[in-house]
Amino acid sequence: MNIQLALDRLSIEEALSITKKVEPYIDWIEVGTSLIKEFGMESVRSLKEAFPHKTIVADSKTFDNAVYEFELCFAAGADVATVLGTAPLVSIEACMETAKRHGKQVMIDLLNTSEEQVKMCSQLEDAILCSHVSKDQQESGEDQGRLHVPSFSDQQVKIAVAGGISIDSFSEIATYSPHVVIIGSGITKAEDPALAAKTFYEMAKQQKENAHE
Amino acid sequence: MNIQLALDRLSIEEALSITKKVEPYIDWIEVGTSLIKEFGMESVRSLKEAFPHKTIVADSKTFDNAVYEFELCFAAGADVATVLGTAPLVSIEACMETAKRHGKQVMIDLLNTSEEQVKMCSQLEDAILCSHVSKDQQESGEDQGRLHVPSFSDQQVKIAVAGGISIDSFSEIATYSPHVVIIGSGITKAEDPALAAKTFYEMAKQQKENAHE
Repeated sequence: MNIQLALDRLSIEEALSITKKVEPYIDWIEVGTSLIKEFGMESVRSLKEAFPHKTIVADSKTFDNAVYEFELCFAAGADVATVLGTAPLVSIEACMETAKRHGKQVMIDLLNTSEEQVKMCSQLEDAILCSHVSKDQQESGEDQGRLHVPSFSDQQVKIAVAGGISIDSFSEIATYSPHVVIIGSGITKAEDPALAAKTFYEMAKQQKENAHE
Repeated sequence: MNIQLALDRLSIEEALSITKKVEPYIDWIEVGTSLIKEFGMESVRSLKEAFPHKTIVADSKTFDNAVYEFELCFAAGADVATVLGTAPLVSIEACMETAKRHGKQVMIDLLNTSEEQVKMCSQLEDAILCSHVSKDQQESGEDQGRLHVPSFSDQQVKIAVAGGISIDSFSEIATYSPHVVIIGSGITKAEDPALAAKTFYEMAKQQKENAHE
């Protein structure tokens, strides 16, 4: 289980500063869509330069122009880039091929996908499928509690989970052993981000130990 | 009918240079998703500063975090920002409210939407609905010829049409009198962009005259 720190609604300097504080307790660093749209690929480059040994996820939320956007992300230092599960299949497949060619990974954001789209995405080799309750859904309260880890018959599917994950909700999510647990404001807006990150880290460690007993 | 020049896969300097050449023949300027993701809001600011009297469309393709992203676009000088029709309705509604509060407009990209989503979007007051064949669909050849202008019983709905529009396909599209016709490589990749833009401009003018006869 990897803990992915999601950096959103921050300046690049704030993102670097907060990541430095929590670095020992996180595995993946997500350069959020809001940073990419505000600062462009400079945001991805800055985080990769500062943390070259971490897995950098560019949350590009690609929907079209897949090869071009994914190559931008990889050239800027991303190890993983994201595509929307609601995108045309031809774009998702182009993301998969581009990532494969560069030895990188694809995370597919399942937000607002149909069952058919989820099924199609789950058949793509090496994709990470991200079950996601969006910021706007969280803030509107309409999807509180809808966060769940999808189950796939194919055990090869790697799952990520995102959306308002707190110390309270983490332990339930961890029991499903997702490949990635994505945490944003649960760390970045905590009074003590390092303490919050350390708490998640220790809960994840405990869960891994339990799973191996 | 407004002609919207779509600027994609270009540096900011190239985008400024090409727009200067075609400025008299276009109405709206779209800062494409690829420019936003590569250069951030600097791309929107640069185009607005250079062409303050044109309508600037930020093709943000918002999918979540709607208020934050739309306020970024409007603060950078956009007059219109885009949201994906496949986004959760709560996000689309947040885009509509944010635009209204700023006296700006929303274009909803209908790419890969369900019939139900199109219906919901067509009920949103003042939205511009964009019928869109994507770059990846064009390049794969899977959707050649699928470009169409949706018809809505409510005549208040404003329509935009995008995707591989050429001088050959323009005249058929123009007969539907869309509010916006979006042209990218048909101008930017023409041997003589100014001549291509002038041709579209004169075809649009002719169509308007025919419509008033």
